[in-house]
Parts: sequence; structure tokens; C-alpha cells
Amino acid sequence: MRILVVNVNTTQSITDSIGEQAAGAASPGTEIVPLTPSFGAESVEGNYESYLAAVAVMEAVRAYTEPFDAVIQAGYGEHGREGLQELLDVPVVDITEAAASTAQFLGRSYSVVTSLDRTVPLIEERLHVAGLSARCASVRASGLAVLDLERDERVAVDAIVEQAARAVEDDRAEVICLGCGGMSGLTERVAERTGVPVVDGVSAAVTIAESLVRLGLSTSKVRTYAPPRPKRMVNWPPVGEGRP
Amino acid sequence: MRILVVNVNTTQSITDSIGEQAAGAASPGTEIVPLTPSFGAESVEGNYESYLAAVAVMEAVRAYTEPFDAVIQAGYGEHGREGLQELLDVPVVDITEAAASTAQFLGRSYSVVTSLDRTVPLIEERLHVAGLSARCASVRASGLAVLDLERDERVAVDAIVEQAARAVEDDRAEVICLGCGGMSGLTERVAERTGVPVVDGVSAAVTIAESLVRLGLSTSKVRTYAPPRPKRMVNWPPVGEGRP
Amino acid sequence: MRILVVNVNTTQSITDSIGEQAAGAASPGTEIVPLTPSFGAESVEGNYESYLAAVAVMEAVRAYTEPFDAVIQAGYGEHGREGLQELLDVPVVDITEAAASTAQFLGRSYSVVTSLDRTVPLIEERLHVAGLSARCASVRASGLAVLDLERDERVAVDAIVEQAARAVEDDRAEVICLGCGGMSGLTERVAERTGVPVVDGVSAAVTIAESLVRLGLSTSKVRTYAPPRPKRMVNWPPVGEGRP
Amino acid sequence: MRILVVNVNTTQSITDSIGEQAAGAASPGTEIVPLTPSFGAESVEGNYESYLAAVAVMEAVRAYTEPFDAVIQAGYGEHGREGLQELLDVPVVDITEAAASTAQFLGRSYSVVTSLDRTVPLIEERLHVAGLSARCASVRASGLAVLDLERDERVAVDAIVEQAARAVEDDRAEVICLGCGGMSGLTERVAERTGVPVVDGVSAAVTIAESLVRLGLSTSKVRTYAPPRPKRMVNWPPVGEGRP
Amino acid sequence: MRILVVNVNTTQSITDSIGEQAAGAASPGTEIVPLTPSFGAESVEGNYESYLAAVAVMEAVRAYTEPFDAVIQAGYGEHGREGLQELLDVPVVDITEAAASTAQFLGRSYSVVTSLDRTVPLIEERLHVAGLSARCASVRASGLAVLDLERDERVAVDAIVEQAARAVEDDRAEVICLGCGGMSGLTERVAERTGVPVVDGVSAAVTIAESLVRLGLSTSKVRTYAPPRPKRMVNWPPVGEGRP
Amino acid sequence: MRILVVNVNTTQSITDSIGEQAAGAASPGTEIVPLTPSFGAESVEGNYESYLAAVAVMEAVRAYTEPFDAVIQAGYGEHGREGLQELLDVPVVDITEAAASTAQFLGRSYSVVTSLDRTVPLIEERLHVAGLSARCASVRASGLAVLDLERDERVAVDAIVEQAARAVEDDRAEVICLGCGGMSGLTERVAERTGVPVVDGVSAAVTIAESLVRLGLSTSKVRTYAPPRPKRMVNWPPVGEGRP
Repeated sequence: MRILVVNVNTTQSITDSIGEQAAGAASPGTEIVPLTPSFGAESVEGNYESYLAAVAVMEAVRAYTEPFDAVIQAGYGEHGREGLQELLDVPVVDITEAAASTAQFLGRSYSVVTSLDRTVPLIEERLHVAGLSARCASVRASGLAVLDLERDERVAVDAIVEQAARAVEDDRAEVICLGCGGMSGLTERVAERTGVPVVDGVSAAVTIAESLVRLGLSTSKVRTYAPPRPKRMVNWPPVGEGRP
Repeated sequence: MRILVVNVNTTQSITDSIGEQAAGAASPGTEIVPLTPSFGAESVEGNYESYLAAVAVMEAVRAYTEPFDAVIQAGYGEHGREGLQELLDVPVVDITEAAASTAQFLGRSYSVVTSLDRTVPLIEERLHVAGLSARCASVRASGLAVLDLERDERVAVDAIVEQAARAVEDDRAEVICLGCGGMSGLTERVAERTGVPVVDGVSAAVTIAESLVRLGLSTSKVRTYAPPRPKRMVNWPPVGEGRP
Repeated sequence: MRILVVNVNTTQSITDSIGEQAAGAASPGTEIVPLTPSFGAESVEGNYESYLAAVAVMEAVRAYTEPFDAVIQAGYGEHGREGLQELLDVPVVDITEAAASTAQFLGRSYSVVTSLDRTVPLIEERLHVAGLSARCASVRASGLAVLDLERDERVAVDAIVEQAARAVEDDRAEVICLGCGGMSGLTERVAERTGVPVVDGVSAAVTIAESLVRLGLSTSKVRTYAPPRPKRMVNWPPVGEGRP
Repeated sequence: MRILVVNVNTTQSITDSIGEQAAGAASPGTEIVPLTPSFGAESVEGNYESYLAAVAVMEAVRAYTEPFDAVIQAGYGEHGREGLQELLDVPVVDITEAAASTAQFLGRSYSVVTSLDRTVPLIEERLHVAGLSARCASVRASGLAVLDLERDERVAVDAIVEQAARAVEDDRAEVICLGCGGMSGLTERVAERTGVPVVDGVSAAVTIAESLVRLGLSTSKVRTYAPPRPKRMVNWPPVGEGRP
Repeated sequence: MRILVVNVNTTQSITDSIGEQAAGAASPGTEIVPLTPSFGAESVEGNYESYLAAVAVMEAVRAYTEPFDAVIQAGYGEHGREGLQELLDVPVVDITEAAASTAQFLGRSYSVVTSLDRTVPLIEERLHVAGLSARCASVRASGLAVLDLERDERVAVDAIVEQAARAVEDDRAEVICLGCGGMSGLTERVAERTGVPVVDGVSAAVTIAESLVRLGLSTSKVRTYAPPRPKRMVNWPPVGEGRP
Repeated sequence: MRILVVNVNTTQSITDSIGEQAAGAASPGTEIVPLTPSFGAESVEGNYESYLAAVAVMEAVRAYTEPFDAVIQAGYGEHGREGLQELLDVPVVDITEAAASTAQFLGRSYSVVTSLDRTVPLIEERLHVAGLSARCASVRASGLAVLDLERDERVAVDAIVEQAARAVEDDRAEVICLGCGGMSGLTERVAERTGVPVVDGVSAAVTIAESLVRLGLSTSKVRTYAPPRPKRMVNWPPVGEGRP
């Protein structure tokens, strides 16, 4: 089974780290193919960048010419999953939803700890749209920009643990989701220091994608995610390798 | 005052019709500038096309070099308004929200009559995200594709009136919103035949945009819609006139 | 176009201040007619007084014998708007709803800063009934009685700004609505000191009423706001000039 | 113990019928005092009339000079209960809430069958404000005006039973509340023909008012229902026997 | 009239205290029969113990061979009420719901003060299922285990009052429900010290059960609470006096 | 990895069928151990039987003396999952939640088709408690008792398909969950005839349980699902093999 794991940022090192995390969660026999969009922001931290990433991720998947069995959109709180579901016959799993859905099996409520304060509303809205907000205790910002996460892991873990602890104590969360693709590698250290289960969305998404494939299930095409109707597209898709 | 009214479809005749409708609703002294995106689908009827339109609309506005006072996104149930709000200092008004917001002053509940069944969920989600769904009685599809609306207005009016009547009778709507930029010219005929107020989103958006400008109000920059952080963009913005 | 702006309090100086604020927001050619109820409390700060004001406002409008194009109910969180909608064919705009509806175009969430703590629940319930509470971050009391607002504007601005700042910081509001007709004149000073858009309900209501009139839209008469059925009224309407 | 049961309509025969129903539900030793407002509509069927009734009921209670232990507002879906709670130290029970609250002990969901279609929204909003709508399956109109209920009981029972049956079958209600003070005498006949528990709000309110008095409980005065602040009232209260 | 009041804990002294409280609230002519389950935990403080108590309570009622008119389940936030409703033709009243329902007549919002932090979620879920959570301001834990409540009443009252005060001040509750059958005797002392109405669920349940019996109302058998279908039960009911 | 799959009914043939379905979905190396409770109803179709099953399932798991890695509760809409989570350190997966959670990755909304009408409310409440009801379009009954499902598969498939088709057409479901452990074997036939993805809860639960184990995640013990406190249990646990 081959699963595409698509970064929403155009920074290759993040793609590498996400790919590594995904591979670590995959079953024997699953091939993880990490993809980087050919256009967009080096780090996605807001609506403009996220809408652009939505399109870039779709084009990256369309430009991939080998067969594959499932796609993971590896951005937390980002737009675009619904478009991928229209374009593809194979299952599409968003890491925001994968993490929340997994967390709900582990405790009565969960919180998300993400990067910057400005991304909190995006995550809240995506959970709302996905029908996964009823048991979300809070979405909290660590204050770290996406690219800062890579710079000093100790600082990153400290900032995340601080917010996770407040989520457990003040917001009554019982599980923590790491709300940024770039936090994937920090799961264990955060779990050790908070004493509650910590869910990494990338790993969770890999197991869910594998499960859907194994169960022979894929996106319903009956209404919302039916394939786009045939029509004239102006100046799109972009020419060559998914690049506009 | 100059207001940009941006079509989400790349079909010029729809832009013309939207522009005409907007001009009809504008106050003396307001200049309406209709814009057509330089890339994307001839008609937007689904998530893939809508995400693409979101980006195309943003680039169309960025490519406009004259000063302007407000922007109207003239697509019903489409993605993207939040991105425009980040990019701009002037008010941004989405016609989905303008219509619903206006309808709420006219009756206890409203319904939206849109084009195809597959676009119903998009509209529902946008109203949900906008916090305008509590008084939405239903979103109903006329079964007409966006481009069909232009072909035979009598057929279009009949199909819309049929659903509007059911919304009033069965769903207990008291106001009807026409849920497609391309329906703008049909408002009066639908109102005559249904006996309830009928709101055209484009016209409503023009009055709201004018009001915000007159009141000196614009998008809050304190958190969600703060300008994008300065960062490296890969292969973007596209070169030349907003075209990828 | 003539718009009646009806104070809910029987204090003439508040009517004057509301009228002035409304006139400042009106377009050229719009005549603002401020009205004071002929009976009721000098300041409305609770349910008993608010129900009484609801009836007094309706009688004040009924006693007005000249033609008019729209009515604004200029009390924040007060009862009665639905009754006016039954009695009149012209649009009715409540300032609570006008402010919230306008705020929703400016940010992802808004807070209301009002006068006394005891009026907070009334505002919350009116927003709830109006379907405008989903994006309401909080309703906060400044602790100032309605009549205190007129006594020392500096004290009033300080008290409002303190709560507005906490709404932005703690409740994550992005826009502030001034929740009392008597606060109308303070908008600019509060906006300067908080750094977020501040909406005055009276001004917002004027632009909305003008917009509805210009668009030829008025209250749906199909169900909830149909005219009262003809029937015997006992000892009502009161005799002479709207006075019981 | 003495309980005031206040009609919202100014029709004496309805007061008599409500009083009789209340007396039938009262414990030995409880005195029921039925009151008719001194002004307002002969039958309350809409917002204007309901707001007027709210004030008239409050004045009727204020004009009652003997001591009493509790007050029942005997109008279904009417405004005003909150005002009475401010004015009084004794418990106030609204029949809309009494019926719903009682119904919730009898089945998983309940429906209300009321008089005219136009009163449905008022009842829905009052249940919403009271926090009792989560288990409300539907509010249905029998199509009978309030005064028609008295004319031909057989016709009334038939019309109510028809809607009750649809509520049970289509809306999955398990209990029926009779949604009009004037329906109080029909409870048994409706229950016999529908096979589900039928709750009369007046009777339910009497037992709840008695219970609160026996338990020594009354309205919290800590915030929302604190007594009105001392202030200048203009032309109010009306002179003589609660008449304006 | 005879009302069974069933403790959920197997500790006889708690049954005694609950029975005494119930008897104090009962009308003349009402006989209170307190029952202790024959199996289960000495104090119920979590889901495992609560599910066991649900079954033990049902068996205790089944083992009671005299006629009775109503049943009260005297555990706060416990499972099982729905099962009793299926088994019995007489009304069933849960003290969690009785307290909340009563509190809603006394103020705009209520809080529950319970024993241990771990029982907070159980109470929240039962209120949610019962449709009584819309006006619940908070559920707060005193930190006292059920059996501690009996040890030192002064300590118990202090701990409860502290949380009640925070509920009123911080969560804006206007009424307090004592959220543990074992707190029944402390109502007056807590009320005195908090200045808001305090509701004891056992007392409230007695008046509600009496009211339902007097009104001739009982559980709807039309769907959810229909009697169990006749079927083969394996190794159940247990042999002898409700003991497994 | 060893996963216990516990039937809620005491009918062995259902256990066998569930076990077979689970084994079919398991990865190589996963051992499925099907368990039948030692007491309770032959088929669980209501609250009384469901509460009894909750306890019987817990005792069946406690009586199992070999090590295991996860537990699946294989009853649709049944009580008890929270108790198992308190008792165990390994992950617990309920098939109601597993199916819904999986369905949410496949379409915008899902419906459940279950056995008898009387079980519909139980399923709705469990989805509500689990925070999975926002995208639930409907829960529909096929009208078949649990034991009927085994008698004639063709009749069963017809009845399920009829309701599934109405769920897709009328309720706008995009995915169907088979709402009864006994329906597990019918998934493919229903999927073929409805044209939308059909989720079997047992299979879904197996993949989720495996995923949680592989990711090293288990129930949070920080609050709601902490182990029961040490205390005196009266006449429980039952003596010998989980039998009372």
C-alpha cells in the first residue's frame, strides 16, 4: 500500500520530518511518499497561506503520476481536504481530524496545542466543520512559529508542555493533540512530561488511512465529494509539475 | 467610493451581470468595479473549484493597482473571504453572509435557494462558519447549473420559485436568499411570485460595504485577520496580471 | 427618507444624544426623527422596565402621525422589536442586532460592553433569540448605570475600555460593540484606546435601515410578523398621545 | 397557601376556565385566585398582544392588595415572566415552562400543540430562552384561534388530536403539552385518544408553585431578577386598579 | 401515596439520611420507603460503580413486593433512570434532574456542587442527556469523597460554600444544586452562607413525584420506555432478594 | 496482539458471527478473542437490558485471565464503555463510536440503520455523549429484532437497504453505518445496493483498536477514567467466572 503524505508548507525539511514520522507509524508493507508543494509559503500560518496551500497540495497530488492508495494532508487546521476528496477515488485523511478522532477514543475531552495564536481560529473552524468540536476542550497556542519548532527542540517542548498542562488543569482536557505537522517528532517528550496521552496527527492519520484501505472504504461520491463536473478551466491546471 | 466586486467564476458574462446588479444597488458616488479572476473554472460548483477560486479572487484583487475602498466576493458559499481579510485593510464582504445577515432583519428565519444539490453543503458550512446558521431554515437546490441560469430565465425563475415556495411552506422560512451570484437579476420576479422578501446577495453586499466605509469601520487586525507574516513565498505570487 | 429612532428610556437628554449620533451616521437626504416614549423608566436596566419600554416604544410609534420609512429601536438588549415588526409595514432595526450583525463583518468574534451587570443576561438572550450569539465572545458589564454614562465621560470611557481590553485579551473578541444607547458618543475614544473596531449600534442601525429601504425590502408578513388579527382590545390603545 | 393565576387574555370566561382547572389541581388548603388583566387583547395571539399582556399581567399582580404565596402566568409562549420575577419575592411559574419541565419527566421528548400557526415561533423562542428546547420534538399548530377553542370542544379536540398524533408518529414525541391556557379542560380527552401522556400547563404549574412554596424556595435575587433599581418612572404605574 | 427512595450506595447510613430528608419534604399522607441496594459499592464515585448501581437499584425495586406509586433514584449523576422507566408503570424521578428542573424555576442559571472532581463529567453527561444543560453554568467539585460528607459536616459545608461562591461569582450561577445524595442535610446551612437559593435533589424529587402522581401522569410507553420485550434472560434476575 | 471482542447479548451465535467479522478485519498477528457475557438478555434491545449488559460485559472482561491488548464492546448504542475504560489500562473501543468515527472520514454526514425503533434513542444518546452527533444525519430503524437478523438474511438486507436509501435521499446521508453487532455480515450486500460506503462497526473497531495499540496510546487516567477508588464492595464481584 502506498500513502502520499503531503506537507502544506514548501519547506523541505518539514516534509522530511513529517515523512519520517509517518514512516515510523506505518505497518510493514506500507510505503510512505512525502510530497512538498511546488508553490506557496515556507510555513503556513494564516488563511491566505492556507488557501494557497490547499490549491498547492491538490496540484502536488495531481502531478504525482504513480498509483497510490490514500492521501494524508499533513497540515493542522488547514483548508483543502474537501477538494482532495472530490478529485480522488482513494481515501483522504486530514491530520487535524485524524488527531481529534483518535483523541476521542482516549479521553472524554481533548485540547490542541498549536504554534501561533493567530492559527487558533483556523483549527477551531476546521474542527467545527469536521463535527469534532463537541469534545474539544480548547485550542491553545504555544507562541512558537512553525519554523521556530525546528530550531530548538527543548524550547519547543517547554512551550508546548506549559500549554498542555494548563489545558489539562484549567480546560479539563484529558488528551493533548499536537497541533502542527512540524511538532510530530516531539510527541513522546510531551507525553512524558504531561502524564496524559499525546496524539500526533501524522501518525494517527497513517493508521487511519491504512485502516480505510484495508476495510475497502473510500470517500462517498453521492453528493458533496462527487468528482468536479466537466467544464472549461481557464489557465488551469498550471503547466508542468504542478507549478503555476 | 470605489468597490471591487469580484466574480468567482471566470465567465465574463456572469461578471457583467453581477456588476450591473451591484451598480443598481450602489449609492450615487459609488463606483463599482467588477473583476473576473484570471484563472479557474468557468463556473464554480464544488470544493475543488471553490478553493481554486478563493486563490484566484485574492490574486485578482492583488493585481488591481488602483485604490479602492471595499471588496465584495460575489460567490455564494465559496471559500476565501478570510484570506482577503488578511490581505486587505479595507472591508471585505461576502455575498453569502451579506444576504443572510440582511435576511435576518426581515423575518424570523430564511432559506437559501441555490443552483445544484452538490453546492448545498458548501453553503451550509459557510453559514455555519460565519455564525449565521441559527436562523437558516434550509438550503435548497433548484437543480440548475450556474451556466443554465443564463440560458432561459423563465425556466430558472420557475425552478427557484418552486423551491422557495417549499421553503416557506415546509421549512417555515419567512425570507428567501438567492444563493448564486448568477441569480442576481431574478430577485424581483421571484419576490412577486412567492410573496415573501427575496434578498439578492450582491445588492445586499453593496449596501453593507458602503455602510462600513461610511462608518469608518474595517476588518479587525488583532488576531485572525492580521496581515500575513513576512516570509519566503515559493513560486508565488504568479508572474504578471494575477495569472499563474 | 425619514427614519424614526426611538429611545427606550424616558430621559430626553438620552434621546437627544441618540438622535445626534443617528443624524451623524445618516446619508444626505435622510431625516432622523428621535422619539421619547411617553411613559416608562427614566433609564431601562432590567426586565420589568424593558417590557414596559417595549410597549411604550410601540405606542410612541403608533402615536406618530407623519409618514416614515423605517424605525430603529434604540435600546440595547431590550424587548419589543418583534411587536413593532407586526405593527408596521416598514423595516424595523434593533440596535442590539444592528451592532452584532455589523461586528460580524469585521472580525471572527465580538464582545459587547454594556452598563450594569444585571443587564448582561438580557443582552445575551436577545442575541440568542436573534440568532447572533454564535460569534459573541462575551457580554461584559462596565458597572456604570445608564444615567452615569452622561455624568462623566472620562470615567465612562475608562470603565468601558477596561472591559473591552479584557474581552479582547481573555475572551478573544476581535470587535467591540458598545452595549447601551447612551454610549453612542464614546465610540471613537474607545476605538482609539483598544486598537480594535468599535461598533455603535445606533450608527450601524441607521445604515442598515437606509440599506433596507433603498433595496425595497421590509419585514416578511408571512407568519411570525403578520399584522395583529382584528380583535377587541380592552382599555387599549391608551387615550391621547401615546400616554396610558 | 394562596396562588394567583393570571390570565394573559382579557376574556373573563377564559379566566374562569383556567381558574377551575387550577383549583382542580391544587392541594387541599391551597386557595387559587384567578386574575384577569385590566387592559389588553381579548385573546393573545402574537408579539404585540403578548408584550402588552406582559405589562398588563404585571400591573394586575401589582394591583392585587392581599398577600399571596406564588404567581402563575397562565399564557402559553407569552412574554413577561422575567419581569414578574423582578417585581416579586414569591415564586413565579410560567405555564409554558411548567408543562415542558413536567413533560421531561415523562418521556424522552415532547411536542407542544398550540392554537394558530403564528404563535408557534413565540412558543419556540420562550422554550429556547428557558433552556427547555433540547428535548422539544416540535411545536405544532391546531389552526384554531384561542376563542374558537371555547366554541366547539369536539372540533377543538379533533384538531388537537390530529396534530398530536403526527407529533408522536412523525416528530417522535413521547409526550404532548397542550400549548394554550384555553385548552386546559381538554387534557383527558386528548390523552385518551393519543395514548401518550398529555400535560396541561396550568395544572402542572399549580403543583410546581406549591412545591416551591413548600420547599421554601423562591427566585434568586442575585443578578438577573434583582428588584428594579429605585428610579423615576414617567406616567407609570397607571392610576387606579392597574388600569392605564 | 407510597414513594420508594432508592439509594445508589450500599451504605445504610446514607440511606437513612436520604430517607429522613425525603420524609421531611413529603406531604402528609405520603409514605417514604428508603431502599438500599443489595450489592455494589459503599459509595458511588465513577462509571464502573455507577453502572453497577444502576443495575442494583433496578433489582432493589424489583425485589420490593408491596405496591408503590413512584420511585426516586437518589444518586446524583448516576446511570440507570431510563431502565427503571422501562420496568415500571409508575413515575420515576432522578434527583439530578429533579434538582436541575427545580433550579430552573428559580434563576436564569444554576451550578451543581458535587463531591469529587472525577464525578463532574458524569453529572455533566446526565444533564446533557436529560436536556437540562443549557442553563447549567458549571458543575464544580468540593473535593470531598461521598463518605467524607458524613464525617465532619462543618468541613463539608465550608468546602461546598467555597465552590458555590465561586459558581455565583465566576460562572454567573444564580442557584446552587447540591450534587450528591449525601449532601441532603446541608441545604439550609449552604443557603444561609451563599445568599442564593440552594436546591436539594432529594426534596425536589419528592415534590415532583408527588405532583406527577396527583396529576395522574406517568412515563410514556410509546417508544423509548416501552416495557422490555419478552425474551430469554440468562442467569438473571438473580436469585433471592435482589442479590446476585 | 490480542483483542477481546465482547458481545453484549448472551446469544452464542451472535458472538460467533461478531468474532468472525472481527477476525476478517484483523491484521496478521492479531488474535481476536470473542467473549459472551455470563448473564443478561439473549438480545439487548432497550435500556434495562443495556444497563445489565454493561455490567455483564465488564464482568466478562474481568473474568478473562489471560493478558490482552485492547477491548472492543460489540453492542451498538449500548451503555458501559466508560466503565470498561476505568477498569482497564488497555484501549477500549465501542463499535457505535468506531463506526461513526470511521464514517466521518468518508462523507460529510452519515446515518445509522439499526434494528428496532425503540433502540433509536439509545443510539442517538450514545452518539451525543461521544461527541459524534454533529454529522449524524439520522438514526433509522429497519424494524427487525436482533434475533430476526439471523433468521433470513435476504429479508434483513431488504429492510436495511430500504432505510439506507431513504437516509441518503431524504436525510442527505452520504455514508451508512450498520447499527447492530448482528448486522456485521451484511455490509457488502448493503453497500452494493445503496451505492454509498457502508461501515460495519465491528470491523472498524478492530482497525482502531489495532491502531491505538500500535501507536502506544491508551485511555487517559487523569480524571474521568481514573481507576475506581479502593473501597468496600458489597456482594460484588460475583463469585466464579463472572457469574452473579
